[in-house]
Amino acid sequence: MRNVTKDNITDVFMGYFGPDTDPRLRTILESLVRHLHAFAKETSLTHAEWQKGIEFLEWAGDISDKERHEFVLLSDVLGLSSLVDMINTVPGGTSSSVLGPFHISGAPPLAIGGDLKGDFEGTVLISEGIVRDQDGNPIEGAEVDIWQTAPNGLYSSQDPEQDTYSFHGIQMTGPDGRYAFTSVKPVSYTVPSDGPVGGILNATGRHPWRPSHLHFIVKAKGFRPLVTEVFPDDDPYLDEDTVFGVREDLVMSYVDMPAGTFPEGFELSGKVDEAYHTVNFDLVLTPDQS
Amino acid sequence: MRNVTKDNITDVFMGYFGPDTDPRLRTILESLVRHLHAFAKETSLTHAEWQKGIEFLEWAGDISDKERHEFVLLSDVLGLSSLVDMINTVPGGTSSSVLGPFHISGAPPLAIGGDLKGDFEGTVLISEGIVRDQDGNPIEGAEVDIWQTAPNGLYSSQDPEQDTYSFHGIQMTGPDGRYAFTSVKPVSYTVPSDGPVGGILNATGRHPWRPSHLHFIVKAKGFRPLVTEVFPDDDPYLDEDTVFGVREDLVMSYVDMPAGTFPEGFELSGKVDEAYHTVNFDLVLTPDQS
Repeated sequence: MRNVTKDNITDVFMGYFGPDTDPRLRTILESLVRHLHAFAKETSLTHAEWQKGIEFLEWAGDISDKERHEFVLLSDVLGLSSLVDMINTVPGGTSSSVLGPFHISGAPPLAIGGDLKGDFEGTVLISEGIVRDQDGNPIEGAEVDIWQTAPNGLYSSQDPEQDTYSFHGIQMTGPDGRYAFTSVKPVSYTVPSDGPVGGILNATGRHPWRPSHLHFIVKAKGFRPLVTEVFPDDDPYLDEDTVFGVREDLVMSYVDMPAGTFPEGFELSGKVDEAYHTVNFDLVLTPDQS
Repeated sequence: MRNVTKDNITDVFMGYFGPDTDPRLRTILESLVRHLHAFAKETSLTHAEWQKGIEFLEWAGDISDKERHEFVLLSDVLGLSSLVDMINTVPGGTSSSVLGPFHISGAPPLAIGGDLKGDFEGTVLISEGIVRDQDGNPIEGAEVDIWQTAPNGLYSSQDPEQDTYSFHGIQMTGPDGRYAFTSVKPVSYTVPSDGPVGGILNATGRHPWRPSHLHFIVKAKGFRPLVTEVFPDDDPYLDEDTVFGVREDLVMSYVDMPAGTFPEGFELSGKVDEAYHTVNFDLVLTPDQS
């Protein structure tokens, strides 16, 4: 087409597709480009604004590396990550929530009742629950990948002071479907705001805070993988999570337990005399339909 | 909002904006995010597809540097760059067309009648025309920034064999508004297709070719800057420019001239005995409204 106009350019774009294009790719690119073009027309985007957008993407590329994922963060603060979670949530299971940019693969095995707290300061938190199906049956052999911030609000990948897998562990459920571990209560923290995504937050008067949470990825044969987070119900940022991750069914009470009542069956049993917290949270998986 | 859903997330996003947000930024982000969310919902985007998108952006960031602008190229092949050009074109002037990723600033001055060809092989092309306003009056003191490919199809920034400003020059018009220079006929070339953007072209059965062209940026006091390209009418890729840059008024005849007729007033006058081409193209500017 030698006379491309702003009215026909989207159709000209689609006309360039070859006959062997994967149908799903065609669907995705057509929708993406129709919306991209509509955005530019609707806003009468100027060259200077387009240039700012390009510079934003180049800066995000520049600042990204193996440990910093600025494009994931961008998706998070624009609500895209949460939207994809919600689109892919099957009713009847635990809600999914954002993976976030701090997950690292290959965490070491953590025995049932094992400890993530180690030598870190802070009140002990016992976190436990049952991985189960929609009918309430426990799921044996489920892999529960757990990670959270240290008491300083940093994930290990952000913090040179921590070991690689500090506050990371992978637990396998037995016949009772139970996961259980000790840690410390996670803390509210800020997403990295010294890069281009922080620039968006700043320019729109948004804060970079996330309510505190424990992260889980749960995988079991025959079930859809679940990526989720569990939030304490007393966190001040529950209603303004900067990455839109909070769902009502993921907000739990952390119960205060008195000193001298620490239960059996934990790596720390017999070693803790102080008050502690418990949180009980079942992880409900839905069948894998694929 | 602690119960974000796929139906309210776009409004929750907008609700996070602070009262001091720049109104234009608010307009742009609202439109961008509404379209981004609509895209994800319309396609029921999966986590795996989202992940591919993130990897695409990270790869584009990785491959970009001072001389390679993969995000510009992405904008080009998705038709966004051309659309922004068309949105911002004022009727009555020469059509604008894509800047492309190969422009470099600071090209050396080029006298009227000066030469860009140097020692490169190829038939000489004389390119000339008048920079004028919509009423046909010549514009004095217009800056005409000119660049093109070498005969090997590469811009200097892509080609370690070329000097930095090879086939680049900046000309200032005199009272007659005339620009004029010698060069070689530009050649069709491929956009860089060894990166993520090349992956899109490949997966959708698209070729990476652009029709040959001369690039111009024209600036003059009191007028809107013009970024444009001039295409020869015999190029095989005129109807399938991979970056959507062709407009009918930018397609010109390159006239074949016989040996022994080379005109006066050029740096090469008296030095060229062979056949050559000429192309005559006026550059019409519109008033600066801002």
